[in-house]
Amino acid sequence: MKDLKKRILAGNQADLDEIENQLSENLKPYLDLVSEVANHILFAGGKRLRPLLLVLAAKICGYSDKYAKTVASAMEYLHAATLLHDDIIDDAVLRRGKTVAHSVYGNAVTVLVGDFLLARALAICADSGKIKVIHIISDLTENMSTGEVHQLMRKGDVTLTEEEYMEVIRRKTAVLFQAACTVSAVIAEAPPEKEQALSDYGYNLGLAFQMIDDLFDYTMDTVALGKEVGADLKEGKLTLPIIEALKHADSADRDQMVKIIQNEDFTDDEFKSLVALLHKNDGIDYTLKKSRTFVARAKEALSIFETSKYKDSLLDIADYALARRL
Amino acid sequence: MKDLKKRILAGNQADLDEIENQLSENLKPYLDLVSEVANHILFAGGKRLRPLLLVLAAKICGYSDKYAKTVASAMEYLHAATLLHDDIIDDAVLRRGKTVAHSVYGNAVTVLVGDFLLARALAICADSGKIKVIHIISDLTENMSTGEVHQLMRKGDVTLTEEEYMEVIRRKTAVLFQAACTVSAVIAEAPPEKEQALSDYGYNLGLAFQMIDDLFDYTMDTVALGKEVGADLKEGKLTLPIIEALKHADSADRDQMVKIIQNEDFTDDEFKSLVALLHKNDGIDYTLKKSRTFVARAKEALSIFETSKYKDSLLDIADYALARRL
Repeated sequence: MKDLKKRILAGNQADLDEIENQLSENLKPYLDLVSEVANHILFAGGKRLRPLLLVLAAKICGYSDKYAKTVASAMEYLHAATLLHDDIIDDAVLRRGKTVAHSVYGNAVTVLVGDFLLARALAICADSGKIKVIHIISDLTENMSTGEVHQLMRKGDVTLTEEEYMEVIRRKTAVLFQAACTVSAVIAEAPPEKEQALSDYGYNLGLAFQMIDDLFDYTMDTVALGKEVGADLKEGKLTLPIIEALKHADSADRDQMVKIIQNEDFTDDEFKSLVALLHKNDGIDYTLKKSRTFVARAKEALSIFETSKYKDSLLDIADYALARRL
Repeated sequence: MKDLKKRILAGNQADLDEIENQLSENLKPYLDLVSEVANHILFAGGKRLRPLLLVLAAKICGYSDKYAKTVASAMEYLHAATLLHDDIIDDAVLRRGKTVAHSVYGNAVTVLVGDFLLARALAICADSGKIKVIHIISDLTENMSTGEVHQLMRKGDVTLTEEEYMEVIRRKTAVLFQAACTVSAVIAEAPPEKEQALSDYGYNLGLAFQMIDDLFDYTMDTVALGKEVGADLKEGKLTLPIIEALKHADSADRDQMVKIIQNEDFTDDEFKSLVALLHKNDGIDYTLKKSRTFVARAKEALSIFETSKYKDSLLDIADYALARRL
């Protein structure tokens, strides 16, 4: 796994450096406080996965203009904007191992800097001169906001189905991965089949990525996770490992699980019992298996592209989605 | 004044009805809760001033396609989005005489529905096929968010200057009025001088409108205002009447004013003394005089257009900005 990460980083170091550079360059608000809050979330050790996907997708379509890195920074701004708004929603405490922005700067400024980042992303995308890019961004923003509302509405509800879970992660995560890849194809003026292939790659990768992320909440410790373990559960966010395990649990297991799920102040021991029940009732393995399917689909989508170092990196990133820190 | 309002409404009833219709038509989220929260703010007796400006500005440029009303609804969505986010920021209680959305639905959903409305507005504007419209929207969103941050940063600070106040209201209010008028000219493919004239009209009208709005906080009662009297002051929002009066106040008046300003829990009697001091020290008259100057500029900007009923309505609206409920 470490080799995979090393290979992705080493193979794309120059682009990653330029992305980092663009993230500072394109912000420039007239108020220092806006930069400060934006930087709090932007430079907190994010993996730059979405911007890197955009740059690689552009290159695989033969587009290597510097503007790709500029639009790539827009994708990270969009991502950061949703993190700022989501952390208010979840009343989260830690994000990427740091105190969340709204605890430091207050809800008000945090909401507004989220809006500012959205506006910056939009301005950058408008510079492409392509209305199709704007449609992608507006669809994306619409999906992400309604996906989050959907998740909120079903908070703590143990009748949540796998179908609904998939709908939520499609909207709140997969569409952004998909957009990062599709925007590139549009800017590169790639033929429709390449645009579709990159769209499919991003979409399936995004689904797998979110599933694995949700799995981490039950398989990792706080230090590795960079946020509180069991945070999803504390927020009443029911994810696939729970949904699947509830399906298979006998009545005693189910009762025990529901009791822990519905108690916001569960103890560490209770959380450990829950994790054990998730393993026992196939919640962990099923989620892993399902995310592997989506990774396979993401990789398969790239088959129409000839071999290149860009394609290799995109394939590596798909594998990394599965392999990272499990 | 009542005649002015009647004339504006009667002269544009068909357009206002179609705007109302478009506001429902273009929303359509897949979740009922999203409609419910959006409708809470959208159908709470708003004046539809911004959409009406857009439609009239389009018509004065000879554009009468139905799409003008669709884009007009986008302007109201943008406005509503900022109201939802602002009310969280201000921790307001009443808006247009109704309990604010976040008290009914919670901060989380309210932030997200604001994001959703922004996304819908963007999608509608993208349908224009004109990148310039998108640039206007992104500039607007950037200005509005940073203007609000600026206002927050200077909360309760009695050293706030008129210059800073003007910068804040330019960003948070005037740019949206300006955008509503400019977008029309762009969609109508009007010549540059007409676009500039409408931009100037909207900008100056927006400044006057916000000044008068800020004045209301010191000259109207709760029922007429539709929100708590003295709400601005309670939030530490210092506006032109205060800034100007502080300039002229002798040391005793100034001390008394500062004491009331800096006490969040001022009594009704203290508030009345403050209003009296604003009158005495020219805060009220100066604000009124200054807003008249901007209304005059707004009307002057329209001089390049030939007489028409659309122009008459735009002139009436400018007068109404001054005359409404004073």
